[in-house]
Amino acid sequence: MNTEEIYQRQGFGHTTGIGQRCCLLMVDFVNSFVDPLQLGGPHIQDAVKATVPLLAAFRSWGLPIAHTRVVFDANGSDRNLFATRVKALQALTEGAVGSQIVSELAPQNSEWVVRKQGASAFFNTGLADWLHFQSVDTVVVTGCTTSGCVRATVVDAVQHNFRTVVLSDCVGDRALGPHDANLFDMRQKYADILTRDDLLSHLHSRQGAST
Amino acid sequence: MNTEEIYQRQGFGHTTGIGQRCCLLMVDFVNSFVDPLQLGGPHIQDAVKATVPLLAAFRSWGLPIAHTRVVFDANGSDRNLFATRVKALQALTEGAVGSQIVSELAPQNSEWVVRKQGASAFFNTGLADWLHFQSVDTVVVTGCTTSGCVRATVVDAVQHNFRTVVLSDCVGDRALGPHDANLFDMRQKYADILTRDDLLSHLHSRQGAST
Amino acid sequence: MNTEEIYQRQGFGHTTGIGQRCCLLMVDFVNSFVDPLQLGGPHIQDAVKATVPLLAAFRSWGLPIAHTRVVFDANGSDRNLFATRVKALQALTEGAVGSQIVSELAPQNSEWVVRKQGASAFFNTGLADWLHFQSVDTVVVTGCTTSGCVRATVVDAVQHNFRTVVLSDCVGDRALGPHDANLFDMRQKYADILTRDDLLSHLHSRQGAST
Amino acid sequence: MNTEEIYQRQGFGHTTGIGQRCCLLMVDFVNSFVDPLQLGGPHIQDAVKATVPLLAAFRSWGLPIAHTRVVFDANGSDRNLFATRVKALQALTEGAVGSQIVSELAPQNSEWVVRKQGASAFFNTGLADWLHFQSVDTVVVTGCTTSGCVRATVVDAVQHNFRTVVLSDCVGDRALGPHDANLFDMRQKYADILTRDDLLSHLHSRQGAST
Repeated sequence: MNTEEIYQRQGFGHTTGIGQRCCLLMVDFVNSFVDPLQLGGPHIQDAVKATVPLLAAFRSWGLPIAHTRVVFDANGSDRNLFATRVKALQALTEGAVGSQIVSELAPQNSEWVVRKQGASAFFNTGLADWLHFQSVDTVVVTGCTTSGCVRATVVDAVQHNFRTVVLSDCVGDRALGPHDANLFDMRQKYADILTRDDLLSHLHSRQGAST
Repeated sequence: MNTEEIYQRQGFGHTTGIGQRCCLLMVDFVNSFVDPLQLGGPHIQDAVKATVPLLAAFRSWGLPIAHTRVVFDANGSDRNLFATRVKALQALTEGAVGSQIVSELAPQNSEWVVRKQGASAFFNTGLADWLHFQSVDTVVVTGCTTSGCVRATVVDAVQHNFRTVVLSDCVGDRALGPHDANLFDMRQKYADILTRDDLLSHLHSRQGAST
Repeated sequence: MNTEEIYQRQGFGHTTGIGQRCCLLMVDFVNSFVDPLQLGGPHIQDAVKATVPLLAAFRSWGLPIAHTRVVFDANGSDRNLFATRVKALQALTEGAVGSQIVSELAPQNSEWVVRKQGASAFFNTGLADWLHFQSVDTVVVTGCTTSGCVRATVVDAVQHNFRTVVLSDCVGDRALGPHDANLFDMRQKYADILTRDDLLSHLHSRQGAST
Repeated sequence: MNTEEIYQRQGFGHTTGIGQRCCLLMVDFVNSFVDPLQLGGPHIQDAVKATVPLLAAFRSWGLPIAHTRVVFDANGSDRNLFATRVKALQALTEGAVGSQIVSELAPQNSEWVVRKQGASAFFNTGLADWLHFQSVDTVVVTGCTTSGCVRATVVDAVQHNFRTVVLSDCVGDRALGPHDANLFDMRQKYADILTRDDLLSHLHSRQGAST
């Protein structure tokens, strides 16, 4: 019995579908995570490009949009164990170029930019409560890295009772092995894995009906 | 450049070491997760066996010990999205055989048995605050599954600023691919990966000195 | 300028109203908090009586209902600083008479009974996520004590972005001074204060329209 | 039987004392909360003055220090229900004069300035985890207002298992009735209430011994 069959027999791999109201969550699409010479990989640049029209669509529909950045205080006051272990994170301060959202996806108007210091976009931020206040029941996750902050965010999203969708071509990693392994885990246990165009066509038909 | 090299060049893979006071955390070592015909795998049975002498050592040293179980109310009142997606979890009620800690590791005396409804042992439980109250700075994680509740727990442990150690032979999964992939992710980003005997010899020398 | 005027001039005392879907939350209506010889007061018995028809109405409308109890493990494993300070809480174990919901308000069917170890019904419980999963946007708070667990719960409810209503005749305390002082604070900053009959008539008209 | 006697008979009013390592937490000592024409009161100005030498002492001892400010994004993106209810909070943006720490207590060096959007300094911030990482077991609370953010912070501090001390002359409110009523509640249930000089003389003797 292969791995897929084991999971299937034990009742994993179900989907939860798309609910009434989606939020687009873009995890850590910042300069340093896109640059393969810093914390990124070429795969992440592709994910950025794939996200551009998705963001435009969410804007056109007026749906909630949130970005995340890792931001530590330049004076070291909020350093935590995670940044002690992964020292490169300490350079991601409010004004650092590396911690700015990439220009292709620059936040507009009233889009919320969540400052975070952990892996999950939900950890010690008000994201779950904010989503609730926006009447969101479905979180569409893009960003990087698949095996890091995306995975951590997805686990928390489902724990907070949000239907969770990961767009396989809008998430990226610094290496493909962990990317694929984490898409497998998330699909089996936590999230529906769709392509960007699958989601867009689903939402287009719905939004078309409502406008 | 292979995956390992990419991570190394970007500054991952550091260790945080063992602090002043360890807690042994056993994640979901319950009957249904040990049984390959239910939610488990043979690999998990090996992890249980490897954990038995570890638990005895922590008991002999009087160090904090916590077990976790997934427990949902039999009346369905606390059903969440995770249990809607992974329906097998709904059967894990207070009295169900499948949700009891395996007999080899049965809780004793004042060991805390954390009831949880999510993947992470920290999510919506008081575990972080309890560990703080016990003056713990290092969490030693065993249990199952490596790619599920262990991974989710480890990410939260480091986010809560605990030094985190995963014992590679005391965690198990229903299939080896996800087990190995998640040990890789955790080692690179979140936890020190040791064998049980490495940890025991470290603690033996220390505890010997203090008694 | 009296206290009321100071608050008014600074912009406090606004209301947030009743949203689309209410949950009835009954905080710690357990035997020991009703008994003036244990942790209660005669005022709390009145609050129980006033809550009986309210609970019946919520049941008839099929709206979400949650009860809370303070429950500590009899083996002392989950003792916290709060129970070290207020030692009487340690007796509130799963099977203790004092920690059972009073018979007049005994939970039915699939009503969730939240076990808590802190003052707030939200603290280290999954209550916020559960309410979100039930599509609740408004929490109607009853229970005891006004100056203790009710106040702590109300502050968390608004912090979690729930419109919060406190029913002045369905909450009680062991003494009237703290009861009144906390109703003042909550009205100025956190919650709409209504009588039970005000809320019932509001919901009657709405539910009547929808059925 | 008066109120005090009722609480005493039921086992309230115990103290928890000062632990091994204190953090000085200054809640919302910002310009707008000091100004009686904005959100403050003259009593709060006294609390600021009393806190000045306390802060100097904590600095001289090298103990952890944290300030809090209410900060909302100027674009309205992180507006929550609390700021919808208390609209004056919306003006407290990163650059607003009203939301800067008062000059007498201006943060230095690596003191952490916690941005918060709720009443409690712990709510959706990383404060509990930060305190844990600093090995703090005792939180010394000063700031304003006694009946608002101080009270909410104190309840969370004890829920997170920190011994909690409130300095009666270093906390202030916009009116004296709520100030006194909340000191009563906190003393009975959550915190030790000391004067600044009581705490200083306690810490002086201890720090003297250790240096």
